[in-house]
Amino acid sequence: MVMRDVQPGQRNEAGIAAVKAELAAALGAKFQTGQSFREQHAHTTTYLPSQLPDAVVFAETVEDVKAVVKACAAHKVPVIPFGAGSSLEGQLNAPSGGISLDMTRMEKVLRVSAEDLDVTVEPGVTREALNTYLRDTGLFFPIDPGANASIGGMTSTRASGTNAVRYGTMKDNVLSLTVVTANGEEISTGTRARKSSAGYDLTRLFVGAEGTLGVITSITLKLQGIPEKIGGGVCGFPTVKAACDAVIMTIQMGIPVARIELLDAMQIKACNAYSGLTLKEQPTLFLEFHGTEETVPLQSEQFSMIAQECGGEEFHWTANAEERAALWKARHNAYWAGRALAPSLNGFSTDVCVPISKLADCVAETQADIEQNGLLAPIVGHAGDGNFHVLLLFNDKDPADIERVEGFVQRLNRRAIAMGGTCTGEHGIGQGKMSFLEEEAGPALALMRTIKQSLDPDNIFNPGKILRPAR
Amino acid sequence: MVMRDVQPGQRNEAGIAAVKAELAAALGAKFQTGQSFREQHAHTTTYLPSQLPDAVVFAETVEDVKAVVKACAAHKVPVIPFGAGSSLEGQLNAPSGGISLDMTRMEKVLRVSAEDLDVTVEPGVTREALNTYLRDTGLFFPIDPGANASIGGMTSTRASGTNAVRYGTMKDNVLSLTVVTANGEEISTGTRARKSSAGYDLTRLFVGAEGTLGVITSITLKLQGIPEKIGGGVCGFPTVKAACDAVIMTIQMGIPVARIELLDAMQIKACNAYSGLTLKEQPTLFLEFHGTEETVPLQSEQFSMIAQECGGEEFHWTANAEERAALWKARHNAYWAGRALAPSLNGFSTDVCVPISKLADCVAETQADIEQNGLLAPIVGHAGDGNFHVLLLFNDKDPADIERVEGFVQRLNRRAIAMGGTCTGEHGIGQGKMSFLEEEAGPALALMRTIKQSLDPDNIFNPGKILRPAR
Repeated sequence: MVMRDVQPGQRNEAGIAAVKAELAAALGAKFQTGQSFREQHAHTTTYLPSQLPDAVVFAETVEDVKAVVKACAAHKVPVIPFGAGSSLEGQLNAPSGGISLDMTRMEKVLRVSAEDLDVTVEPGVTREALNTYLRDTGLFFPIDPGANASIGGMTSTRASGTNAVRYGTMKDNVLSLTVVTANGEEISTGTRARKSSAGYDLTRLFVGAEGTLGVITSITLKLQGIPEKIGGGVCGFPTVKAACDAVIMTIQMGIPVARIELLDAMQIKACNAYSGLTLKEQPTLFLEFHGTEETVPLQSEQFSMIAQECGGEEFHWTANAEERAALWKARHNAYWAGRALAPSLNGFSTDVCVPISKLADCVAETQADIEQNGLLAPIVGHAGDGNFHVLLLFNDKDPADIERVEGFVQRLNRRAIAMGGTCTGEHGIGQGKMSFLEEEAGPALALMRTIKQSLDPDNIFNPGKILRPAR
Repeated sequence: MVMRDVQPGQRNEAGIAAVKAELAAALGAKFQTGQSFREQHAHTTTYLPSQLPDAVVFAETVEDVKAVVKACAAHKVPVIPFGAGSSLEGQLNAPSGGISLDMTRMEKVLRVSAEDLDVTVEPGVTREALNTYLRDTGLFFPIDPGANASIGGMTSTRASGTNAVRYGTMKDNVLSLTVVTANGEEISTGTRARKSSAGYDLTRLFVGAEGTLGVITSITLKLQGIPEKIGGGVCGFPTVKAACDAVIMTIQMGIPVARIELLDAMQIKACNAYSGLTLKEQPTLFLEFHGTEETVPLQSEQFSMIAQECGGEEFHWTANAEERAALWKARHNAYWAGRALAPSLNGFSTDVCVPISKLADCVAETQADIEQNGLLAPIVGHAGDGNFHVLLLFNDKDPADIERVEGFVQRLNRRAIAMGGTCTGEHGIGQGKMSFLEEEAGPALALMRTIKQSLDPDNIFNPGKILRPAR
């Protein structure tokens, strides 16, 4: 079902040869064609087979980016921007070959303003590096997709993660961008003003475009003050429904919860084994509250009352930094914990997002589907957003197993779309979800095609992603 | 300077005649060509001269909208969507004639979900009507641009207002839209999921497009729970700088202030006279806090300490609903209070937005400019966003006065842009700010043109707005 979209595209052999020759001459050691470089840059944290680029350029400056885009535009050769390589839907594959444009050496923090709570970074800065840099300012950048992704990649996939419920997604946290567009020139999509009504929202057009409309060369981000106090804890529930009811009431009452994560019984089992937790194997919420000495206890008590009303266990919270760190380390290692349930199998993580009122139904139906089809697939969710992940453990050498998994993924996506949701809350479309985007967007897909065609008429930017070639 | 952009455009007389005949036959009394209808629909709260449409259609259904767009597309005739008529930069003028598409009769609330905190409305629903409708749900829609604007119009100008500092702008509060595009068909730009990484962000493309890319036919909005407790008050400062310092510290400390509005001494004088306040004529902040019985007093005390540290007067806050209502009524009447300073003069309100660290400098330089040029122009600002308004009082029959005002507006916009800000925080571009958008966007303007041309190849949607005809 989804594998069929990982087909080789048409290759422009003459153009590729010309670009390789030009860039080799112009960029010296920043240009690499070795097999290991090429393999590394098509490696994706996914079940999709790799499709290697023809060469890798390690850009160090905006001028390098312009040179690559101009050469590729002149010869109609693909350019695939590369951040940390942690995307999940085949965003970095090169179905028609071309140049992988590695941004990891563009890793400078260009400016920071503590007064304005904003920062401008090059795209290769990772979220962990940024927060290390910011440590002395009392500020932090909240978006946390789990992986130590690059800010450029996070921008391009409209990433979010555990604390989007409080701080929003990349859509909400990017103030402006600079982008090298198809003519090889750099534009600025906005200003540092907190809001603007000045023309079309170009910033939001590039956020989530997965590198298909241009190459991001810098990102200006909103920052947050480090909370005076952080508290958190876990709370078990008899059913997914009960846990989701508690989430809905928490959001409805406006408790500004910073994290509210759902782990199903299978995922708790996996975390207990992998991270040495001793939690009861039942649907469980992991919570975090950000605030002051006064507000964090208040928020925790409010949640505690809600949990009890919904049939949850008693909620114990702690401000102890070590205990909290252990908890969130276990949450962040949920993927590896899941994989460890069946070390001989491959795994891939897929996500959908539904209106929060549908979360319990969607998770319950998905669990029933998993059981009916004999799949092994723990679930974790950013419950406050209605977003959840299923980690499918399967034998990727067994066609029958692949078929079973792909059937499940199709049903999962259609279930979410039918419930008024989306086929991906944070992983993006890449190659793996192009068919589901078609189902979700319907006639709006034509508009996306028009935009792609008008901003990238020669289809050089990350071709074969988001939009399937028109049939 | 800005007046020069209010030129008549080319008129397609044959097309206009054909569209009029077709729509008169198809729509009956929903189609009107009377002078008073036409005048009313080109009337803008602005200094710009009116440019009348050739006819007005009062759409009652999506089918009516499709019929108008299809007829206008077939004959290449302008369609100008009309909401409440409260836009400020000539967004509703018809420089090339055409059809004003009045959406006020599409005023149904289509659905509401208390569990998901969202609602879907037709574009003619006003923000006050929406909040009246929601009263029994415990929810409210926070965006408050002052005027009782329509939700469709607010979406199209990316509106915000006094409490954007807490709740964001329309950009942040629209979940998805339905839009009739240039082929006369309706698309949906997204789902009700709280977040999505599924393809290009079409929703944000239409938010703020001022009707130049399509006609919005429904809007799905996020809602907020009505706060358990609301408190607020006023605080005077010796200088604009001192007031702005207090704002910056408030934001930096993460105090979730719901409103933090700056009024300069001239505006306080105007409000005292008009609304019967007795405030000292000095730079003053109006504040509001939303929270619980416990958090509102905490927030107010934290602000009080900050204000004193910055040289402000003692801050008295109140949760008394009548006192608060009187205060915010005075704030909302700031425009009329300003106008009453010189009843014989015309007035127009212009806005810019700068990074908050530049707000004090920008306001101070602007006050000096006002004084040097002998202008009468009170200032109010959404200080937490770095956004402020200048109400210019002038004789619009006196060419010298117009020239003086236009020179001032040019300097104001260039000052904001030079400080890293934008030529409009919330009023939009319309006709009045097209030249400043060119200065602000630079090479990004070409991208906006490309988008406009690809989505509206015959330039039927609100032509002559946002983008000047290429020269």
